[in-house]
Amino acid sequence: MGDVRQRLHLQLDPEAGHPRVISPLNRVVLAAVVAAVLIAILSTERSFLPDHRDLLLRVDRGILLFFAVELAGRFWVAGLNPRHAGISGLLRFTLRPSTLTDMVVLVPLFIDLEGSWLTLFRMVRVLRLFQVTEIPAAARAIRAFRSALKSHWFELGFTGVLGAGLLLASSVALYLIEGRLQPDIFGSVPRSIWWSVVTFTTVGYGDAVPITPLGRVIAGFHAIAGLAVVAMFTGIIASALTESVEERDKQDTGPPSP
Amino acid sequence: MGDVRQRLHLQLDPEAGHPRVISPLNRVVLAAVVAAVLIAILSTERSFLPDHRDLLLRVDRGILLFFAVELAGRFWVAGLNPRHAGISGLLRFTLRPSTLTDMVVLVPLFIDLEGSWLTLFRMVRVLRLFQVTEIPAAARAIRAFRSALKSHWFELGFTGVLGAGLLLASSVALYLIEGRLQPDIFGSVPRSIWWSVVTFTTVGYGDAVPITPLGRVIAGFHAIAGLAVVAMFTGIIASALTESVEERDKQDTGPPSP
Amino acid sequence: MGDVRQRLHLQLDPEAGHPRVISPLNRVVLAAVVAAVLIAILSTERSFLPDHRDLLLRVDRGILLFFAVELAGRFWVAGLNPRHAGISGLLRFTLRPSTLTDMVVLVPLFIDLEGSWLTLFRMVRVLRLFQVTEIPAAARAIRAFRSALKSHWFELGFTGVLGAGLLLASSVALYLIEGRLQPDIFGSVPRSIWWSVVTFTTVGYGDAVPITPLGRVIAGFHAIAGLAVVAMFTGIIASALTESVEERDKQDTGPPSP
Amino acid sequence: MGDVRQRLHLQLDPEAGHPRVISPLNRVVLAAVVAAVLIAILSTERSFLPDHRDLLLRVDRGILLFFAVELAGRFWVAGLNPRHAGISGLLRFTLRPSTLTDMVVLVPLFIDLEGSWLTLFRMVRVLRLFQVTEIPAAARAIRAFRSALKSHWFELGFTGVLGAGLLLASSVALYLIEGRLQPDIFGSVPRSIWWSVVTFTTVGYGDAVPITPLGRVIAGFHAIAGLAVVAMFTGIIASALTESVEERDKQDTGPPSP
Repeated sequence: MGDVRQRLHLQLDPEAGHPRVISPLNRVVLAAVVAAVLIAILSTERSFLPDHRDLLLRVDRGILLFFAVELAGRFWVAGLNPRHAGISGLLRFTLRPSTLTDMVVLVPLFIDLEGSWLTLFRMVRVLRLFQVTEIPAAARAIRAFRSALKSHWFELGFTGVLGAGLLLASSVALYLIEGRLQPDIFGSVPRSIWWSVVTFTTVGYGDAVPITPLGRVIAGFHAIAGLAVVAMFTGIIASALTESVEERDKQDTGPPSP
Repeated sequence: MGDVRQRLHLQLDPEAGHPRVISPLNRVVLAAVVAAVLIAILSTERSFLPDHRDLLLRVDRGILLFFAVELAGRFWVAGLNPRHAGISGLLRFTLRPSTLTDMVVLVPLFIDLEGSWLTLFRMVRVLRLFQVTEIPAAARAIRAFRSALKSHWFELGFTGVLGAGLLLASSVALYLIEGRLQPDIFGSVPRSIWWSVVTFTTVGYGDAVPITPLGRVIAGFHAIAGLAVVAMFTGIIASALTESVEERDKQDTGPPSP
Repeated sequence: MGDVRQRLHLQLDPEAGHPRVISPLNRVVLAAVVAAVLIAILSTERSFLPDHRDLLLRVDRGILLFFAVELAGRFWVAGLNPRHAGISGLLRFTLRPSTLTDMVVLVPLFIDLEGSWLTLFRMVRVLRLFQVTEIPAAARAIRAFRSALKSHWFELGFTGVLGAGLLLASSVALYLIEGRLQPDIFGSVPRSIWWSVVTFTTVGYGDAVPITPLGRVIAGFHAIAGLAVVAMFTGIIASALTESVEERDKQDTGPPSP
Repeated sequence: MGDVRQRLHLQLDPEAGHPRVISPLNRVVLAAVVAAVLIAILSTERSFLPDHRDLLLRVDRGILLFFAVELAGRFWVAGLNPRHAGISGLLRFTLRPSTLTDMVVLVPLFIDLEGSWLTLFRMVRVLRLFQVTEIPAAARAIRAFRSALKSHWFELGFTGVLGAGLLLASSVALYLIEGRLQPDIFGSVPRSIWWSVVTFTTVGYGDAVPITPLGRVIAGFHAIAGLAVVAMFTGIIASALTESVEERDKQDTGPPSP
């Protein structure tokens, strides 16, 4: 029995040191998560398999039961990880975000939900995908990413404030210029901000478009400014990552011995 | 009294060396600025709290009064900063952009404004956010950013001229090709430029679209050229920032002693 | 005869070491591929040369015959490349993707195809362009590219999962908020995903646009998040390429001798 | 007289070594070029100063006369630049692109042009702006840029072929899927390519949009692939520029002396 527990631990806990980056059992779990998310998405569309709604519901229930068994297994083997040993370890294990997510996902098994609430609880399943980040190698990559961005916090913040200032300035300008011509679109600053964001991000739906020459000149500069801010943002991230990689390399090599 | 002045100086002046990057009092000021901007934005929308316009106006007035007190405080403690000591220092303090902004923001307290003018003066408040750039660490980051871009001035300028040339060339081409088919959209070069900018920045509202095969071929190349110019722009910024970071690192380390 | 075979081999096989990167004969082949693709594209448009459909068909047939002769030539000289010598080498040559493509391209010469199938077989021709990647220098560049991306696999994967999560979260949000107001557009999660992808990639056709204030706030953040994810993606690629270039330079120089 | 010629040479020829990067006289010329381009653009719009067309024409003529005098001056002082001394030097000076542009710009002074031809000749003026690239510092920056891109020719070319292949594949797919449903938009591959380019570059006018589920799935992947290709492109340019800057720095420092 202890042997089974040991082997299950190796399969379920990414920190247990399975030779593969993702163990075979966790691959099955990942596939089940993807399937569960797909069913949750597709079952909101009425024209999808209209004659087989019952089958969909049963498959969905089956996957949830599998998740329940899996979660029970995770609780059973949690104690083998030194960080989760003992009563306080079990509590830590229970309260960490990924275990809480696992439990929230199971709610529809116990409570009969309908409509929007059912959809919401079903969509929480997608968060289970982020458990991949518990793999040590992935956790290291994300930590490196975060530390790289942290050291350029001021530059990123300044770019953000600049972008926000430009967004607001263009919104106010268009509100003053075209507010009376197109009251539905530019009749107030919040309405203008919708146009401003859609233009700044270069989405450009076309539902809000300036029609006066002056408004168009400002819109043109606004779109170009949007590209420049995004370019600054991208440039900062690229240089932050390049720098952090070089830092890491330097530490790996160590200082040259005399 | 001198002690209160000293402590207020530490709270208000970012250069006074408060242990936190932004002092508690300045955080309150920042929050008030954000609130004041939000009120200014939302009160242009008539469907927002239609029955509580008076309340909004009173809150707005309250924040302005707080700003007035704060500005008085800043004047009171300005002399403790060596750069603003004495009469000439006070003048320098009064005429620097951030103090002028603080004073312009207060205009609606003294003059009854209406409509567009009121909106304009209210929007100036957002400029107070840029006072964050007076924090020494932020000022250093911005200086590094500017010096990095300065050393690549010619590349950036050349990219800009190239972009402008492409914009104009496509505008003239579409004016010649579709000027007679769609006179409202391509009937003159300035009108074509509107289409050209909207396409080049990949906003693509859809209010101006070529309909002839030749016009579409040119539009396609124009959009791709736009992406290439933006890519060049982003690449120049990224490499400039990477370079400036390495420069700084080199200076930090100093030349290896023999 | 052996001499002719030798010279043809030098012209046809990019690995034979022709002094030019692309040999004159292979340039002719490339031009023929481009011409064949253009004919395949243009002949689907009925308004293109409506009175000369026969001529187009005959030119198309001529190019295919040229491809058949060329393929026969490639088979004839294949044995001169050590990797393709002997019976097993010939089999390897026959089964490699580029030779299979060459054979699939010739199918319409032997079987009378019509409509969609003819179009599909004609479009396969474009894959012949990728044979350029068999040039040793190009193959090396692509290998370097792939190894650079491979070493940043986790960062790229994390960015992808983040993007997918954002796409889904916004889709569910808009489905819940505007599903009843605009059932054709947001009436189910799969329908919302169409809007979500079009906004996230900043394409913004304008066929699916939120109309409620809350929906627009989410759409705005969604578009900005899309830009941020693309910026992260671009930054990772840029830093990966910079790093791999420096790695290569280091290996080229070798460690400094004492 | 020789002294005047000397001083004019210093003002007109960017290679003459004027202490300012752009000499005062050349600044006047640049301003005149910008003014001439603006007049050329604005005079195509009939609603612009409809009662002062004559004045516009006279100002235009005046600027052209100034350009004629300036060109005469450039010919007069050309011989002082060693590269343009003697008869063969004068011929070289006459045939270089910037001098030819200067002469083409003057054509409307001598020949009465109308409509499209007049517009075309007027737009050539914008090319005079690129004479800025004759400034030694600018020429060096552009050379560095070109050499950086040249060393990554294969990567850029591969990205281009990949993009072209994706464009064509999506076009064919949509032609086969929605060709019968929306014959005006996807009824032939060339028509589909218009949609494909507009989506790939994320312009997204909205005049061509897939309506079937399968078509939308392909369109979504196509838009994401477009972003990925642009990200690769940007990343290659950024790393090429970073690399070339480091190369230059290495050469500036030189190898460490033993």
